Amino acid sequence: MSATPKAVSRLIEAFGRLPGIGPKTASRLTYYLLRAGQEDARLLGEALLDLHAHTVLCSVCCNVSETDPCALCADPARDRSMICVVEQPLDVLAIENTGRYKGLYHVLHGHISPMERIGPDELHMQELVHRLGGEVREVIVATNPTLEGDATAMYLARLLEPLGVTVTRLALGLPRGGDLEYADRVTLAEALAGRRKME
Amino acid sequence: MSATPKAVSRLIEAFGRLPGIGPKTASRLTYYLLRAGQEDARLLGEALLDLHAHTVLCSVCCNVSETDPCALCADPARDRSMICVVEQPLDVLAIENTGRYKGLYHVLHGHISPMERIGPDELHMQELVHRLGGEVREVIVATNPTLEGDATAMYLARLLEPLGVTVTRLALGLPRGGDLEYADRVTLAEALAGRRKME
Repeated sequence: MSATPKAVSRLIEAFGRLPGIGPKTASRLTYYLLRAGQEDARLLGEALLDLHAHTVLCSVCCNVSETDPCALCADPARDRSMICVVEQPLDVLAIENTGRYKGLYHVLHGHISPMERIGPDELHMQELVHRLGGEVREVIVATNPTLEGDATAMYLARLLEPLGVTVTRLALGLPRGGDLEYADRVTLAEALAGRRKME
Repeated sequence: MSATPKAVSRLIEAFGRLPGIGPKTASRLTYYLLRAGQEDARLLGEALLDLHAHTVLCSVCCNVSETDPCALCADPARDRSMICVVEQPLDVLAIENTGRYKGLYHVLHGHISPMERIGPDELHMQELVHRLGGEVREVIVATNPTLEGDATAMYLARLLEPLGVTVTRLALGLPRGGDLEYADRVTLAEALAGRRKME
């Protein structure tokens, strides 16, 4: 369309490459920024250009960080006897937000998925193996409760248990605040199988 | 959260300022770009920084453009006897996509809205008035079929008709492909009131 300036269609295209943003949303965001003025576009643009320049992967836990090692790995107050293994950096935030975990983390950056051709070598598993042997007693596998998360957890259990650590997995069951009547069959079965004695 | 690098939280915040993007989506987009690699973030970042630098408002029709006057206003093939008035630049694209309009445009960049404190002076109406007097015979008001769009259309009709042009408005009625049964009462009433003799 000759009516669209190149700078506009270029931004629409770039927005459209993001997950969950289709061509309509991409146009709307672009024209919003045109209306909103230069400041908003500049802030977002500079933040994008700085993103990779100002972040590294922590060489210990492989989380995205400003420093190496990251603030969590460097924090002397964290319990060094446990490592919680997650798929993505956002999962670290989710667990931190519970306020109930004081150990260390390890970020795999994905899960085992033969369909997507992701095997153990594509994940940060060797870095995890290298962390064992010292104070670490327990590895809590907090991969997603999905087929791929299960496969990854199983692989990790077989890989790490021979190295002398206890490998545990997050509990499956009914989500707090949920309704038994609306729970899916699989979740209900897991909740039943995982039932615990009341104290 | 000390666990989040500043470059990451800055981008999350900048994404979160966009309309329709909440904090969760903003995090997801940011961590997606971290995973996707530097190229995607760079493309989007540069497109954002170029957006305002490489666009101007056409001094004739007030549409967003690379050049002044814009490609549409400069096109000798367009019919200079009609001007279609729209609220936003995206509306120009929508009408161009019909392939049924060969006249010129005028972009108001908004609508009259006492609630949002937008009066006629906040819109590009004087620029429209200055375009009349020459070849222009008809002004087609294509503001949205909303309260604000109606108010804007009414104001324009009263402003422009004394200047010797015919002011028309887009037809209201049933959307093509819609179902009478599911049409809302107001739309159906408009369709009834606007009924036309079959030929």
